[in-house]
Amino acid sequence: MSEKINGWVVDIAMEPPSLDDNSADAARLEKALAEKLKTGSITMDLELLKHLPERLRRWNYTCRCVVFQVRDNWQLIDVVDPEGGTCPAGIAVDLGTTRVVMRLVGLDSGETLSESAFDNPQTAAGPDILARIHHAQKTEGLQELQAMIIKGINKAVGDLCGEAGISLEHVYLMAVAGNTAMAHFFMRVPPQWLIREPYIPAVNRPGAFEAEEIGVVLHTSARVFVFPNAGSYFGGDLISGAYYAGFHENEEISVLVDVGTNAEVLLGNREWLVACAGAAGPALEGGVSEIGMTAGPGVIDSVSIKTETREFEIHTIDNSPPKGICGSGMIDLAAQLFLTGMLDIRGRLVPEACGNRLKEADGLRHLIVVFGRDSATGCDLTISQADLDSLIRSKAAMYTILETITGYVGISFKDISAFYVAGTFGSYIRPRSAISIGMLPDLAEKIFLPLGNSSLKGAVRLLQSRSAVADIESIRERITYLELNVNQDFMNRFSAAKFLPHTDAGRFPTVARDI
Amino acid sequence: MSEKINGWVVDIAMEPPSLDDNSADAARLEKALAEKLKTGSITMDLELLKHLPERLRRWNYTCRCVVFQVRDNWQLIDVVDPEGGTCPAGIAVDLGTTRVVMRLVGLDSGETLSESAFDNPQTAAGPDILARIHHAQKTEGLQELQAMIIKGINKAVGDLCGEAGISLEHVYLMAVAGNTAMAHFFMRVPPQWLIREPYIPAVNRPGAFEAEEIGVVLHTSARVFVFPNAGSYFGGDLISGAYYAGFHENEEISVLVDVGTNAEVLLGNREWLVACAGAAGPALEGGVSEIGMTAGPGVIDSVSIKTETREFEIHTIDNSPPKGICGSGMIDLAAQLFLTGMLDIRGRLVPEACGNRLKEADGLRHLIVVFGRDSATGCDLTISQADLDSLIRSKAAMYTILETITGYVGISFKDISAFYVAGTFGSYIRPRSAISIGMLPDLAEKIFLPLGNSSLKGAVRLLQSRSAVADIESIRERITYLELNVNQDFMNRFSAAKFLPHTDAGRFPTVARDI
Repeated sequence: MSEKINGWVVDIAMEPPSLDDNSADAARLEKALAEKLKTGSITMDLELLKHLPERLRRWNYTCRCVVFQVRDNWQLIDVVDPEGGTCPAGIAVDLGTTRVVMRLVGLDSGETLSESAFDNPQTAAGPDILARIHHAQKTEGLQELQAMIIKGINKAVGDLCGEAGISLEHVYLMAVAGNTAMAHFFMRVPPQWLIREPYIPAVNRPGAFEAEEIGVVLHTSARVFVFPNAGSYFGGDLISGAYYAGFHENEEISVLVDVGTNAEVLLGNREWLVACAGAAGPALEGGVSEIGMTAGPGVIDSVSIKTETREFEIHTIDNSPPKGICGSGMIDLAAQLFLTGMLDIRGRLVPEACGNRLKEADGLRHLIVVFGRDSATGCDLTISQADLDSLIRSKAAMYTILETITGYVGISFKDISAFYVAGTFGSYIRPRSAISIGMLPDLAEKIFLPLGNSSLKGAVRLLQSRSAVADIESIRERITYLELNVNQDFMNRFSAAKFLPHTDAGRFPTVARDI
Repeated sequence: MSEKINGWVVDIAMEPPSLDDNSADAARLEKALAEKLKTGSITMDLELLKHLPERLRRWNYTCRCVVFQVRDNWQLIDVVDPEGGTCPAGIAVDLGTTRVVMRLVGLDSGETLSESAFDNPQTAAGPDILARIHHAQKTEGLQELQAMIIKGINKAVGDLCGEAGISLEHVYLMAVAGNTAMAHFFMRVPPQWLIREPYIPAVNRPGAFEAEEIGVVLHTSARVFVFPNAGSYFGGDLISGAYYAGFHENEEISVLVDVGTNAEVLLGNREWLVACAGAAGPALEGGVSEIGMTAGPGVIDSVSIKTETREFEIHTIDNSPPKGICGSGMIDLAAQLFLTGMLDIRGRLVPEACGNRLKEADGLRHLIVVFGRDSATGCDLTISQADLDSLIRSKAAMYTILETITGYVGISFKDISAFYVAGTFGSYIRPRSAISIGMLPDLAEKIFLPLGNSSLKGAVRLLQSRSAVADIESIRERITYLELNVNQDFMNRFSAAKFLPHTDAGRFPTVARDI
């Protein structure tokens, strides 16, 4: 049963000791495990050693082992009854700045047992990373930040276990994927150097800690794995996503894009990887305008506009009356406005084309996306020219980053065989729209692959695979971090990308065809 | 300075971080250390990680590291000011059944700073290993045994540090060498299977623990290394002695002998090792007779008898009037009695030769070693025929074990280039006397090398050498433990060895010459 997923649960049967083989109980088990795991060195905690002789004799030298890899070493976390009903479990954690998502997974089956999410309680200390790092520098500030998140996680662990009917004592692993700052808060490691040039994390490879050291309440010998980072701006959440996308085994060149306030990009294959991150602005996160929102009920996630009639077809996530618009909705909207001539190539609203949807407010042109009669609020839902400008800056930044990183490596967009888009944004975005505004390069739609919450999914996969720690490290150690040099060259490329889809329309042949 | 002894203290200077090399503080230090130590993987505790960024910046990316090897992994225990006066120290412990000896050593200089010894407090729970293992099986018995020894050690640690003027916080390592049972008590690991066939320890390679896990009060991240064993009857004290004797590097074949109630023998070189242990009886530990004592003031440690006059020359350890005799004194005595014809080849007292030194008591012949007028007690100090028989059984057992182990390997005594004799016994014994009674083979005296407290000395050497953990493991893993099969063959060899020096006198040509 434990072999089903080739994971961290391993069944072992040994020859009982005899005068001819008087090696110690621990040595006997380590040897049998090492043969099965094809590794050199296995260690166990003193606490387990104290119970080992009695357990091995009770089970006649067979047992079910829960193991984990800590750096190059393998840790035997516990031995349990091979016949008993114990279901060893692990918890994957997506440690987001605003939201934390956790999933309880059976370590023998690899299956999801329950899932839970909560708003990151650290928001009380600071809404964003920067504010929290400042908070961390106050007396006891870092301790507070850690206590907040640990308390939240411990509560969620209880909920997850309760829902699945599993004892806390059977949770042996926790895999935590978060950005570099969140990981520092979680470990209570000083974060202040992350935001000061030259932007140095305290640690790249935290590895695995005993749950107790961190303050997480699981099995007493449980290990908490904190995903490694590739720098202050390329965190464990992205490494987890890259692992989920298979960058440790992909032969072809792929790109992973995660879009938020920062746009993070990873390019490469199992031989080499280049990463970079750049400010993309808040436009793509829903922070762009008065009506900008993150995806949720009543939020517009797609827009289409009929070419002839310029009639809007609005879709909200749950089909309820619209009250706002998310990042992917904005991209759809901008694409449709552009393709129907309501937005010109410089991204300006065209009065003649917008007709009665145009109004002035605060000295700025506004486009009415939803008339008051159709909205959830009864008021017109509008976006301003400034909102559109902001979106265009974001899309231009994204494109310029992609252009820079491929240029650095010396490949063209055509060499990319898969284009993974991480996060909620990636789940809702329609690649065709992103291409239409020149945010993503003009490649076949089928190569764009939404990953969903890839930070969580990578952590779940770690709980399922015995090679995960090595695979993840193979990704991390290959990453070359490209510091974006915002020089004149970059600014020139950025300026060219601020057009719709681009000054050089030849780069977007399929868009030119649609106009 | 740290390089002087190539030990566990390593000075490191790094390039400070820059935009071109934004690796984390921990990664930067790990890399620099790995290059210096020529190793792959280095880890550090979370507690150290919390302080690392601030310390590295304060010292401008130079630091003095205290490291230790834990299995195949290297542990960075602490970083200290490279210019500061901190003197990192370690403590070697000879964890004896009856006596515990500890030495505080400077980790940078390798020099002894202070030394301390105390009677093992576990004697209150049981005088010997067997009694203590029975005690361990009572409720809380094992906890009591551990608490006793830890309390004693912690007190001694305080004394050692006080004497040397060193803070507890600067003690980073403890190396503990004891027999297998003592090591189990120390770790509070169940010992009961050690004494039940097939005599299985819970663990062969305990490795290193955090001091806190064991209960020893040192630096919070200090590591406590417990010497590995090669079975229930070949403990860490002997492995430590073998390490001190250089079995990890000796090209020539050597023997290590430790004589107590058990005689333990290790034979081999850096390619192969065979160990065995057998009951030698109490005769060689001073437990042989009414006047038998362990070495101390007023105890006879050597005896010589003039051939013509049969006059006794008695020497006591501190030249004070004699009150008893230790193991090495007994061997001297027996050798002299034999060489002067007072003892025949069967080990019987010869009345004609003993003259007025012979008396009868309790139906047994007694030899007066010291007349009442010369003794500390005012009474005659005597040994009986039974005492001599007991000694002869012990010497025969020793010789038979040596004969068996060399026979097993297929070598002769002549192939042995060094004959190390461990323990207090080894320090006082005169090889010539042991050869005369046929206890040790008839080899050149110069190859017999007393090691003194080799258990302690091996532990001290571990504190001085960065390759110690690997060297010690290379010894342990090569040991083949030879279970002594007490069959008719063995009994025949034993019977032949009960003569003085041996039934086959040709084996002891230099003794035959002396008679």
